[in-house]
Amino acid sequence: MNLVLLGDRDFIGPNHATLTDERAAHLLNVLKVTPGQPVRVGLLDGALGVGTVESLDEGRVTLQCEFEADIPARPRVDLLLALPRPKVMRRLWAQLAALGVGQIILTNAERVERQYFDTHVLAESCYRPLLIEGLQQAGDTRLPSVSTHRQFKVLVEDHLDTLFGDGVRLVADHRATAPVASAIGQSPVARVLVAIGPEGGWNAYELGLLQAHGFQTVGLGPRTLRVDTACTALLAIVHAAMSEA
Amino acid sequence: MNLVLLGDRDFIGPNHATLTDERAAHLLNVLKVTPGQPVRVGLLDGALGVGTVESLDEGRVTLQCEFEADIPARPRVDLLLALPRPKVMRRLWAQLAALGVGQIILTNAERVERQYFDTHVLAESCYRPLLIEGLQQAGDTRLPSVSTHRQFKVLVEDHLDTLFGDGVRLVADHRATAPVASAIGQSPVARVLVAIGPEGGWNAYELGLLQAHGFQTVGLGPRTLRVDTACTALLAIVHAAMSEA
Repeated sequence: MNLVLLGDRDFIGPNHATLTDERAAHLLNVLKVTPGQPVRVGLLDGALGVGTVESLDEGRVTLQCEFEADIPARPRVDLLLALPRPKVMRRLWAQLAALGVGQIILTNAERVERQYFDTHVLAESCYRPLLIEGLQQAGDTRLPSVSTHRQFKVLVEDHLDTLFGDGVRLVADHRATAPVASAIGQSPVARVLVAIGPEGGWNAYELGLLQAHGFQTVGLGPRTLRVDTACTALLAIVHAAMSEA
Repeated sequence: MNLVLLGDRDFIGPNHATLTDERAAHLLNVLKVTPGQPVRVGLLDGALGVGTVESLDEGRVTLQCEFEADIPARPRVDLLLALPRPKVMRRLWAQLAALGVGQIILTNAERVERQYFDTHVLAESCYRPLLIEGLQQAGDTRLPSVSTHRQFKVLVEDHLDTLFGDGVRLVADHRATAPVASAIGQSPVARVLVAIGPEGGWNAYELGLLQAHGFQTVGLGPRTLRVDTACTALLAIVHAAMSEA
């Protein structure tokens, strides 16, 4: 945990927060904080700042906080992901938040099993703490937005332009050879949306529909990666390419 | 499993292999192969090829194999990694083999706990099947070589030039701003060695010793990633940069 994220309910005064949960346990047992020590804090979807340990008392930590004026920008990369099986999706939430995504758009596809949509891994009560864990790892405050779509065609044709406006749209395809950097180009882009298919890939219809809606195919090389490894690899490459563009 | 890797013990004749283990179970239960069906096969550290299902019999699959003349090139990226805790290292083996590394050099560092070296996760009997799992995922035959070093200084000063000769040496550092692509440059490089430190980073002495031995610092952006996420991210970025150089 490289940042303690605070919500409204943590505050006992304008700039005083009291923690009693696993964040307090981490401060006490892992970081072994002492009174007067500064720790990095942030407001969920708000500013970063510094919290000075004011008191420690039976598992309770009180911080006196000062926040910066500016709120961190939302990550400029969004992810369109064919819903993987629940075990993989559970592992992905924190990783995606740590790598930095503005929004996570989960979709059905032919090779997605229908029962994946009925899992509690898609309940906000399950994924929200995992996203926050990833943000606290990465030192960011901006919670990715999440939407789930059971109809691929309806998503792409009717909703995608609202979810993702201007920007570069990329879809990873094992037959494609164009590298991400050349698809993004040398000029700065506002946002990039990357689409990653299910194990076994998008079918021809799905890939065609994405291409008809502005997605360029990009290749990740000749190696076939597991979906979770591919997500990390592609998001890392896109972030690197955007920071160089 | 996108490739069935075969070893000497699988062969019952010059081009006939019989499988009875989890590879056979995968062919029968997941891919549901039938006689005459071709599947991708490879010789461990040897050529790729095609195996035609000859017979299926009570969990036993016999393949008639044809191999290509050429052996795939060893991945041109090597990894120097401060040994992470056993749970993380166990998860990493297959991921590293899937992403593609020629060799994995594991080392001690100040922020590595000594008992990490006593775990069975470093026994070849543990990691070899995990590396093979990663190769079968990625469709590669080249098993990464693995070495473990309990003395960081001795490794860097006395052994590293033998393990890794000519090539570009990079070390990830959160203070660095140079992107990987510019460190690798525009001209083709034979090999790249990337060094990733422990949770909490290399100490100043360790980073200085690496820099004194030719490592350039590169940054992965402002976000702090977990070691396993950082490995995947950095290896993916290096592979992408090398394929474009």
